[in-house]
Amino acid sequence: MTADVSKPIRLALVGIGKIARSQHLPAIDRVGRLDLTAMVSTGAVDDDVRFETLSDLVASGLAIDAVSFATPPVGRFELAVEALAAGWHVMLEKPPTATVSELEELRRVAGEKGRTVFAAWHSHEAAGVGAARQWLADRRILGGEVFWHENVRDFHPGQEWIFAPGGLGVFDPAINALSILTEILPCSLFVEEASLVFPANRHAPIRSRGAFATSQAEARIAFDLDFESAGEAQWDIAIRTDRGVLELRNGGADLYIEGVKQAVARTSEYEALYERFVGLVERGESDVDGRPLQLVADIFLTGGRETCEPFAF
Amino acid sequence: MTADVSKPIRLALVGIGKIARSQHLPAIDRVGRLDLTAMVSTGAVDDDVRFETLSDLVASGLAIDAVSFATPPVGRFELAVEALAAGWHVMLEKPPTATVSELEELRRVAGEKGRTVFAAWHSHEAAGVGAARQWLADRRILGGEVFWHENVRDFHPGQEWIFAPGGLGVFDPAINALSILTEILPCSLFVEEASLVFPANRHAPIRSRGAFATSQAEARIAFDLDFESAGEAQWDIAIRTDRGVLELRNGGADLYIEGVKQAVARTSEYEALYERFVGLVERGESDVDGRPLQLVADIFLTGGRETCEPFAF
Repeated sequence: MTADVSKPIRLALVGIGKIARSQHLPAIDRVGRLDLTAMVSTGAVDDDVRFETLSDLVASGLAIDAVSFATPPVGRFELAVEALAAGWHVMLEKPPTATVSELEELRRVAGEKGRTVFAAWHSHEAAGVGAARQWLADRRILGGEVFWHENVRDFHPGQEWIFAPGGLGVFDPAINALSILTEILPCSLFVEEASLVFPANRHAPIRSRGAFATSQAEARIAFDLDFESAGEAQWDIAIRTDRGVLELRNGGADLYIEGVKQAVARTSEYEALYERFVGLVERGESDVDGRPLQLVADIFLTGGRETCEPFAF
Repeated sequence: MTADVSKPIRLALVGIGKIARSQHLPAIDRVGRLDLTAMVSTGAVDDDVRFETLSDLVASGLAIDAVSFATPPVGRFELAVEALAAGWHVMLEKPPTATVSELEELRRVAGEKGRTVFAAWHSHEAAGVGAARQWLADRRILGGEVFWHENVRDFHPGQEWIFAPGGLGVFDPAINALSILTEILPCSLFVEEASLVFPANRHAPIRSRGAFATSQAEARIAFDLDFESAGEAQWDIAIRTDRGVLELRNGGADLYIEGVKQAVARTSEYEALYERFVGLVERGESDVDGRPLQLVADIFLTGGRETCEPFAF
């Protein structure tokens, strides 16, 4: 099913928290085709079109074409199923669902109902990522490193859900790195080894180290992830190839080849995501890339476990 | 590619441990088309055709058509890739690989090389499972329970790998229950909640409880898994439907409808698996069902964590 490209897409945004205010609302405002028709939030929202729950929105009879979810990943699946049942297209903040099985089911249901599901990975839209993928496409990968350190107190202050079951802990930010890796590398990744460090009072890991093997036999991508970093946040990826070294720094925003910074067009990651969502809806397509979440699930499945001191925000 | 059905399939068995001796070797002996041509084991094997490693077997130049892996799941992926590269068909003991990503890659490589990959789930061949699937196919599922209790000391004495990273702990047996569930239920399963209890000195859980949601909104399948059960081993599944209650007891061997034991033909699970493998090779097909492993990965990803007293065999 394709949509009439002359009409605005009436959008509901669900989950009005930190990321919705800082990224989703400004981006929606800048994308011409989108008409923000409703907001769903259990918290206070200074707007007339506010609903407490998605069920309230469905029951209201308000005309909606699409729903974007910026709620925490646990519980998002049930909401997305409800939205698809109402006949609405669905966009999902990363990670798209709590589990891989849920994501596969959304793909199936969307196909059945002829609606779009878009599992949005905002780091795919970081300024250096597209150029990095092109540069790596015809090179032989020799190895690489992911270094993803930040302090959860700076970027997720008081967000207790992030250390609850399904909250992913350090993999909430690190899944951005994995979404870049699976996007730019011309080979598949498999967990070779991993350590997971859990605070004694939490259900999700705060640190992880390990390595991926790849379908290019000799290439190995090491990772070093920390969610309680003492210094400045650092989100870097380095890939060594048969013809030079590529680096993505600053979460994919900056691209370096052989240590030399490359000119790349500045982007707004979330504006690009919403433009992509509009295009998917227009063409009647879905975009459901489960690989980053699959790698995290595989790390949890096979990682060695350590316990560290309790964590408090 | 299809095989000449008149010629024997020259088979190598890799990993000559407890399960190979008790199940694989007798089953291979009973399947007419299979000719056990080599065994690969680091341990002592009383046979002339013994190789220390798979690489030794490849290097020997011995004519082989297919390889069956009964090694522990960690490390099996690399061996399977090596076997496929040698042009051999591959059968994998359960769980087929350490991670879901590895299993997807084997599916891809086998397709590329025109070889068969068979992820064998022996509980699929338990006597009551086929009849259970047929009975459930047109019924509405209302709910169910999985009760899977055994003592690891009885069934896996001294097998340290089972509590090492990737060894799955209680999910090494319980994945059999999940392989039955995904086979018999006419709906999809998703992890709704789970607890994982890790011995303080081990990397894999010894107990787990939780529940699956299903694509039939109201149906919920609870599970209670214990790998250090004090009593007799018990491997039972009960499914409530709109038209009666089905039970599989004794690991799927015994089928009860409304409490009445049903007549089912006795089977040899491993003989049936090898017959199925022969059929797949003859037809040039693969059978790679990753759902049971995906559910386990999703449980590890989202389960709450508890620590219990250290475990010793």
